[in-house]
Amino acid sequence: MTNFDPSHAYAKILDAQDELAELRQEFIIPEPELIYLDGNSLGRLPHRTAERLQEVVSEEWGQGLIRGWNANWFEAPNRVGEKIALLVGAAPGQVIVSDTTSINLFKLVMAALRARPGRQQIISDVLNFPSDLYILQGCMELLEKKHRLDLLPSEDGINPDLCALEEMIGPDTALVTLSHVVFKSGYLYDAQVITELAHRAGALVLWDLSHSAGAVPVELDAWNADLAVGCTYKYLNGGPGSPAYLYVRKELQDTLQLPVWGWWAQHSPFDFDLVFTPAQGMNRFLVSSPPVLSMLAMESSVEVLLKVGMARLRRKSVSQTEYLIALSDHYLAPLGFTLGSPRSSVQRGSHVSLRHTEGYRINRALIEAMNLIPDFRAPDNLRLGIAPIYTRYTEIWEAVQRIRRVVEEKIYERYSTKRLAVT
Amino acid sequence: MTNFDPSHAYAKILDAQDELAELRQEFIIPEPELIYLDGNSLGRLPHRTAERLQEVVSEEWGQGLIRGWNANWFEAPNRVGEKIALLVGAAPGQVIVSDTTSINLFKLVMAALRARPGRQQIISDVLNFPSDLYILQGCMELLEKKHRLDLLPSEDGINPDLCALEEMIGPDTALVTLSHVVFKSGYLYDAQVITELAHRAGALVLWDLSHSAGAVPVELDAWNADLAVGCTYKYLNGGPGSPAYLYVRKELQDTLQLPVWGWWAQHSPFDFDLVFTPAQGMNRFLVSSPPVLSMLAMESSVEVLLKVGMARLRRKSVSQTEYLIALSDHYLAPLGFTLGSPRSSVQRGSHVSLRHTEGYRINRALIEAMNLIPDFRAPDNLRLGIAPIYTRYTEIWEAVQRIRRVVEEKIYERYSTKRLAVT
Repeated sequence: MTNFDPSHAYAKILDAQDELAELRQEFIIPEPELIYLDGNSLGRLPHRTAERLQEVVSEEWGQGLIRGWNANWFEAPNRVGEKIALLVGAAPGQVIVSDTTSINLFKLVMAALRARPGRQQIISDVLNFPSDLYILQGCMELLEKKHRLDLLPSEDGINPDLCALEEMIGPDTALVTLSHVVFKSGYLYDAQVITELAHRAGALVLWDLSHSAGAVPVELDAWNADLAVGCTYKYLNGGPGSPAYLYVRKELQDTLQLPVWGWWAQHSPFDFDLVFTPAQGMNRFLVSSPPVLSMLAMESSVEVLLKVGMARLRRKSVSQTEYLIALSDHYLAPLGFTLGSPRSSVQRGSHVSLRHTEGYRINRALIEAMNLIPDFRAPDNLRLGIAPIYTRYTEIWEAVQRIRRVVEEKIYERYSTKRLAVT
Repeated sequence: MTNFDPSHAYAKILDAQDELAELRQEFIIPEPELIYLDGNSLGRLPHRTAERLQEVVSEEWGQGLIRGWNANWFEAPNRVGEKIALLVGAAPGQVIVSDTTSINLFKLVMAALRARPGRQQIISDVLNFPSDLYILQGCMELLEKKHRLDLLPSEDGINPDLCALEEMIGPDTALVTLSHVVFKSGYLYDAQVITELAHRAGALVLWDLSHSAGAVPVELDAWNADLAVGCTYKYLNGGPGSPAYLYVRKELQDTLQLPVWGWWAQHSPFDFDLVFTPAQGMNRFLVSSPPVLSMLAMESSVEVLLKVGMARLRRKSVSQTEYLIALSDHYLAPLGFTLGSPRSSVQRGSHVSLRHTEGYRINRALIEAMNLIPDFRAPDNLRLGIAPIYTRYTEIWEAVQRIRRVVEEKIYERYSTKRLAVT
């Protein structure tokens, strides 16, 4: 970071120069003293979402009753999907909202493996979110253990070993599936390069965008990606457990064989035919009635991001994660913290992990005594999420001071190492 | 119905004698003139649910942010599941909220078929909700077409042929899966008898409670049922697309092999192990983060039903469907309507179908010109749902008068036969 200066005054200058600063007003900030660096796990609540949800409940459900389906809800998976498509570089007709990330991953992995019969290898990495690996393991068991799962290793727990990928991949590879941004270190894959590599071997590629959409540029069409899934409750601010989405490249849509044959995937659901005939296009990838309240709240949140555009958000995100790393080098490295994320912003998403042997207790102390919410990922990652749409530079500066105090004054020693249900 | 009298005065007497009449006040009734007989498709909005949702959004998400998971959300699938368990006659530790009805059906059908290896027959009926049959067809395709699906016939489209069941079922039967109350005619199975019959043949039984829970007594434990699924947006008033639930008999839980291996089904999800190890008990049947806003709205709605208890609700439901049938016999039979539901309340759920060749246009005219909302199910069913928790006898009387006017005055002829997306 050029011109870096560790002073509070410098943080204030950065805020003053921030052309996106006013976007913070779109969000409910209940306690200005609380510094929230966990938008990478659950985004803040936009004002418009709170208002919209009240309207959905009172008017669309309370007054409209069943008429809500024809008026606004039935088309929502497609409509909201197209809004998300604008954030992930997908032309119309390729993104739809449905189920959860894991269910969508299950549907698409099963479809992908059956679209590459005879090929036995699935490639992922040890840095992937474990639930993605669980889904893969379940699919393999379901398909009678005909496949093997090869994981790219990581020497440092931060970066995957990309050389291993070139060695692993080959004519037996059915599917390469990775998280575009990995959940602990924030490592950001060059998706276009990986996709091309996989395609050269005749494999399909599935990207999990959960930790990247809304935080870094995603260009599914430009990458020539085959499949993608993602959640909406992190950088998309959709609300706790808001429904997920999936992307299927146009040419693949009508060729894939899905494992779950749902009512909403039926050609004409209200004919009530007893025999399943799949719809054309993305509706084939639906299953059944979506959780409308959660979905429409999410729709409203996504609209906030659309006002800004990813290029400007990414620019601020890079500037803020660089600033955080520079502050950490200055204030926290002397206290035993090491950087758990790539140093180069080209390879980094929008969160920064700081590793410390007392990471768990430091995280608890920050939440319970210091009015700072990061999160912790085993074994030693204090994870600090930057949501450029509402995070301020002065918050980052202040967060680093609070972390410093918790360690210097040994405040973390007051806390137990016993884990809570959700860390 | 004893003492039946077709006059409006008699309807008023029935309302005056209704010991559950005051429960209607629990619900938002935006237009008293609008008669809503589609609670069997989407229940009305309870006041408490609208209020609760505002609290969840503003306080739990807006202020609590990620802390909401530890405070209230993480345990919600189990907690809400136990509330639903009280409505479906299940002892604790057997019901959990997860995904959608179709996804839950998929999970349990796959598990059931794999728990009965070598057995090739699945039994359902032609009256079942088509999406249940689609899920079965998808499972069969996924399991390489080793199974066959035999459907109990129905001569009249109202009642299933139970004699056929005794002939069909045998040592090759893996699974019997039926809707407890069928969606068109409202036929109500004697679940205990069917379950025993299936068990004698060594088959597993899976009940879809979508059209029965909250409307008729369900006693899963007493029936000795193996598996059940159900939705929560009909008689449970959970809101559009609110999350579904599933039941697995205690002794079966740790023996079943699930197709989808999700994060929330992992033994210790926050250890982030790379290898899936299933949790014990009902958590194995979860997949991943539920749509919290939709789920907590539904929780609040379910609490309304718990205040009443199923016995009293069923008594009123039977009285009201009997009253509706008597009125239909008197006023509507002369206009070409025939009863599309069982006449005996022992075999009838809480909705009544009236068949008429112009059913579709009559339904549209009622909704658009007469301020009455029933629904239509092809080919000729005008479906009238009784939600005893908020339906009044005078509404039923008035509904029959409006139906009569639409036919007598040929108002339906003004409407097109062209179908809307959602009928």
